[in-house]
Amino acid sequence: MALVVAMMLSSAIGKASAGNERMQEISEYIHEGAMAFLYREYKYLAAFVIVVAIIISIFLSVSTAICFICGALFSICAGYLGMTVATKANVRTAEGARSGMSEALKIAFSGGAVMGLGVVGLGIAGVALAYFIFDSNMDIVTGFGLGASSIALFARVGGGIYTKAADVGADLVGKVEAGIPEDDLRNPATIADNVGDNVGDVAGMGADLFESYVGAIVSALTLGIVAYPGGEGIEFVFMLAGCSIIASIIGVMFARTSKSQDPQAALNNGTYIGGVLVICAAAYLSNNLFDSFNAFFAIAAGLIVGLLIGKITEIYTSADYGSVKRIAQQAETGHATTIIAGLAVGMYSTFWPMLLICIGVIISFFVMGGVAKPDMGLFGISLAAVGMLSTTGLTVAVDAYGPIADNAGGIAEMSELPPEVREITDKLDSVGNTTAAIGKGFAIGSAALTALALFSAYAHTVELKTIDLLNPVTLIGLFIGATLPFVFGAMTMESVGKAAYEMIEEVRRQFREIPGLLEGRATADYRKCVDISTAASLHEMMLPGVLALVAPLAMGFLFGTEALGGMIGGALAAGVLEAILMANAGGAWDNAKKYIESGVHGGKGSEAHKAAVTGDTVGDPFKDTSGPSMNILIKLMTIVALVFAPVLAANGGILLNLFT
Amino acid sequence: MALVVAMMLSSAIGKASAGNERMQEISEYIHEGAMAFLYREYKYLAAFVIVVAIIISIFLSVSTAICFICGALFSICAGYLGMTVATKANVRTAEGARSGMSEALKIAFSGGAVMGLGVVGLGIAGVALAYFIFDSNMDIVTGFGLGASSIALFARVGGGIYTKAADVGADLVGKVEAGIPEDDLRNPATIADNVGDNVGDVAGMGADLFESYVGAIVSALTLGIVAYPGGEGIEFVFMLAGCSIIASIIGVMFARTSKSQDPQAALNNGTYIGGVLVICAAAYLSNNLFDSFNAFFAIAAGLIVGLLIGKITEIYTSADYGSVKRIAQQAETGHATTIIAGLAVGMYSTFWPMLLICIGVIISFFVMGGVAKPDMGLFGISLAAVGMLSTTGLTVAVDAYGPIADNAGGIAEMSELPPEVREITDKLDSVGNTTAAIGKGFAIGSAALTALALFSAYAHTVELKTIDLLNPVTLIGLFIGATLPFVFGAMTMESVGKAAYEMIEEVRRQFREIPGLLEGRATADYRKCVDISTAASLHEMMLPGVLALVAPLAMGFLFGTEALGGMIGGALAAGVLEAILMANAGGAWDNAKKYIESGVHGGKGSEAHKAAVTGDTVGDPFKDTSGPSMNILIKLMTIVALVFAPVLAANGGILLNLFT
Repeated sequence: MALVVAMMLSSAIGKASAGNERMQEISEYIHEGAMAFLYREYKYLAAFVIVVAIIISIFLSVSTAICFICGALFSICAGYLGMTVATKANVRTAEGARSGMSEALKIAFSGGAVMGLGVVGLGIAGVALAYFIFDSNMDIVTGFGLGASSIALFARVGGGIYTKAADVGADLVGKVEAGIPEDDLRNPATIADNVGDNVGDVAGMGADLFESYVGAIVSALTLGIVAYPGGEGIEFVFMLAGCSIIASIIGVMFARTSKSQDPQAALNNGTYIGGVLVICAAAYLSNNLFDSFNAFFAIAAGLIVGLLIGKITEIYTSADYGSVKRIAQQAETGHATTIIAGLAVGMYSTFWPMLLICIGVIISFFVMGGVAKPDMGLFGISLAAVGMLSTTGLTVAVDAYGPIADNAGGIAEMSELPPEVREITDKLDSVGNTTAAIGKGFAIGSAALTALALFSAYAHTVELKTIDLLNPVTLIGLFIGATLPFVFGAMTMESVGKAAYEMIEEVRRQFREIPGLLEGRATADYRKCVDISTAASLHEMMLPGVLALVAPLAMGFLFGTEALGGMIGGALAAGVLEAILMANAGGAWDNAKKYIESGVHGGKGSEAHKAAVTGDTVGDPFKDTSGPSMNILIKLMTIVALVFAPVLAANGGILLNLFT
Repeated sequence: MALVVAMMLSSAIGKASAGNERMQEISEYIHEGAMAFLYREYKYLAAFVIVVAIIISIFLSVSTAICFICGALFSICAGYLGMTVATKANVRTAEGARSGMSEALKIAFSGGAVMGLGVVGLGIAGVALAYFIFDSNMDIVTGFGLGASSIALFARVGGGIYTKAADVGADLVGKVEAGIPEDDLRNPATIADNVGDNVGDVAGMGADLFESYVGAIVSALTLGIVAYPGGEGIEFVFMLAGCSIIASIIGVMFARTSKSQDPQAALNNGTYIGGVLVICAAAYLSNNLFDSFNAFFAIAAGLIVGLLIGKITEIYTSADYGSVKRIAQQAETGHATTIIAGLAVGMYSTFWPMLLICIGVIISFFVMGGVAKPDMGLFGISLAAVGMLSTTGLTVAVDAYGPIADNAGGIAEMSELPPEVREITDKLDSVGNTTAAIGKGFAIGSAALTALALFSAYAHTVELKTIDLLNPVTLIGLFIGATLPFVFGAMTMESVGKAAYEMIEEVRRQFREIPGLLEGRATADYRKCVDISTAASLHEMMLPGVLALVAPLAMGFLFGTEALGGMIGGALAAGVLEAILMANAGGAWDNAKKYIESGVHGGKGSEAHKAAVTGDTVGDPFKDTSGPSMNILIKLMTIVALVFAPVLAANGGILLNLFT
């Protein structure tokens, strides 16, 4: 049903006018660049998936390998669908903006909704198929989750490096050195920059949430069959997922047909309607299947925690609140104080989201009677994850709407559309910035809960009785695990630097070597810039990717399943903290810069503005590369542990056994 | 014995010439400022100690409260002794530099050695007294450790805020705005800046290591009596501590009488000789008392890990290696890339120290036969901490030598001594910068091992069977615990900002309102600046201090001893990581700036230099305030848990009991 609606929306977008020739040409560049990235990525992916599938076939089973491949393929389909439609919707949104706000909003949001419905539709269809084909053997079905995770690694980490390399290259050489405005076709990196918005914010974010969505359902199924051997648990999970999709479709329709001139209100209303419908469905199903409202409470706890984390993200990163204003004020005393203030905001901002996640965990565990029956409690935690992710369709739709609106603005600028069109796309874009920040908070929260649920599923599968910090082997697992997000963050930050450096060199070369480019008499070689970003990002993501995959296996095989449990616990805690810190510090710096540009503290061009630009530049890899990569790290490590649980349980702890 | 040698060294320093009148006047300003800080601090401390002592008397016992007060008093004595001698030794080092390098080194290092021997002498004397008076009741003796921790909180956190507020105030208004050189008496904040070196780097660092030293011994005693009910464990700990003191005295004498023109070699040789002697003593004692070398291996593991962590710190923060050079190179592309590069170095640099700590833990646990007998293994971990801290006397001596040499340089500059004198003090100072960086690494490593040992002692005292991460209450303990260092770091970073702001305003006011000050015809009001730094630092440290004290108690009382165990585990992991990140990023930025000042990448005044200054300014609160404060946070939280263990074991988990 979700996929049918997605197809309908997609064809509706296709029917809208794609504007004049120039617009179509630019849109074609972006589309082509995005597809070039995807195809190159697929080549790497194919090699990667084959190698991992062989490893899985040898150590686990061929069935698991098949599930793994399916998980990867389904995620790729969702990403391909979303990217194709997004790169179609952008130019049509720009064209739609000629007829007014509501038409533009309708197209942009429809584009996002295709991605959103694609993610949930393919996610649930894939898990359900795997579950029924492999006869409810969860050891095998978890392979699907690992497949989804692998794609998320490529899309989110690689995409994050791509988008920032292009962004920095376009800004530093184009805006700063050559002095030409943003979104100007004379800049060779401008197409890569616009492609980056799609690659990072549409495909990357979509794959991230696809992974969370699948992970939450897989863990709920694993733990559900333990809690309710009669199958009511499984039934509840599938039925709720189905209802959530219907709720998402209704929410999408609401937001899409809104005649409001305020796009923020339209998006919010759609999300709230979807959320309320999910809550109602959860109450009904919980009462019908379990004769109690306990499961409903667990679902509601997750859903509400997700919404609150989004709201808190907004408070720390929006210029309407104190934190961003304080950073802007500190920009008056220079670059260093701007950085310190932003880091402090990021560090402070970890507290409430972490507390909310803890409250969500505790409520969902206790309400299911986890004290007396731990199995029920762990199922409760996975239900909280399912609850938080029940609005995924809407969240992805709202989130993917942002880069479409951003691209539409870029196309309007590059094709020199009238200023009133640009005004509408600017308005859509600024709403997109807020929704993007909230979406990031939501992605972190859902990654945390999903990883927790997968962690519980792992512990159950390897039949751990405890993960005991009094055991020094577990304790060092925790320590090493907590170190990984720091090392991973350093790697991805340096990767952006290296990739951006190559891009800068290329843009400079083109300005130097293509005669008449700066005067607008020649066309830049956009393809070359797209190529560089693509190659660099895929190359640079290898090392962190290998780290995320190999570290849990190494720990498990050398020191055993309990040490691996400690490692995941440590990585989870530190990874979530780093993710929140980086996302919020980055968002706050970004908006502090925009706040100063609005005219306060000296406005654009002032010393304070320069300092704020420094903050924003530091924040770019924080919020768009390293921060979001943490989500992938923690989920990927956990699902690797879960998938390899059977072989680890049998053969883990080689080094430990030598000592004992 | 250590105290006698300290007294002898102190009187030898007192006999050295204090130079001309001007030098004595300046030295008097610094001494007065340092004492003003100490006395004001003591007032706050007195109130704090009385309140906590009353709480302890009510909830635990009067004996514990007495131990607590004694721990505080002994730490205060060590700090007072060290500060008094350091502020005497600085001017005499400057005067000694007139007769050459070896005389200057002798005085500066003797000054440091008084602090070093004071710390170990008072530490072991205090614990031994408490142990014998209270009849080996470790529940009571741990109070001594809490006392030491409380002073460390004031000295390290308050001192860290003090020193950076003064530093930033002196630099920003004096150097940048008014354009007068560093260490110029026309700058009203210059005395406060020099006082800050003593307050932060002598008293703060001394109290930090006093806390570690006492904490390591207290935990080794607690676990030693469990492992060896016959008392050999206790005997080993006390005898090894005694031998370490003798080894330290011999090492001090070696370094002090070195005729080498290379101060670094003299300091290194002293440290190595001390280390080798401790190793020999450990082997002899281990074989004699236990008929095996197991305890020796545990001690050696700790000692070697400590030395290696120091070496790794040097690799990441010295301009002789790649990391600092990479930051300097990134400074060419601006402020933002400098910050990103420094943060990446800091994040990377967490890996090896963490791995070494883990290896130390594992070796000391396994070598004592911890697999079969966990009690023995936990005793082994505490022995590793004792081993690492066995060279504390020397480490503190070498570390405290730094600010004395730094001060001596300042006094030489302010009293306009001949350039050849300044050359010698510069050489001494630059060696001091390296030793300070290594000392920071050592302080973090020892804090981590001490906290781990205290953590084991806590678990034993509350009779925890497990600290099980599969229990969601423990897991949320871990999450909240890991969040605390982030919040604590944000608080201390903002505190530096606020305190520095007040200082900046005051210096500006004096330049504005005191006629003839900038021309050198009037004297600045140094006292007022000292006052501001003092008041602001003590005021600003309250909130983070309360957080560190209250958080573990709240967790224990509300959610029980196991959740508290999880919290400590999380705080420990995240706190050590943050401490390493901040110390190394700060040190690397500092040396990248100095490296550029040496003439590369455009040298002083270039754009790269400006970017490097930004890095250094961000790094200042990192390495001198927030980073070192993490050491205190993790130890203080753990010892609070240990001291209140009896009452938590009986009454903890109120909220949890409501649910169950």
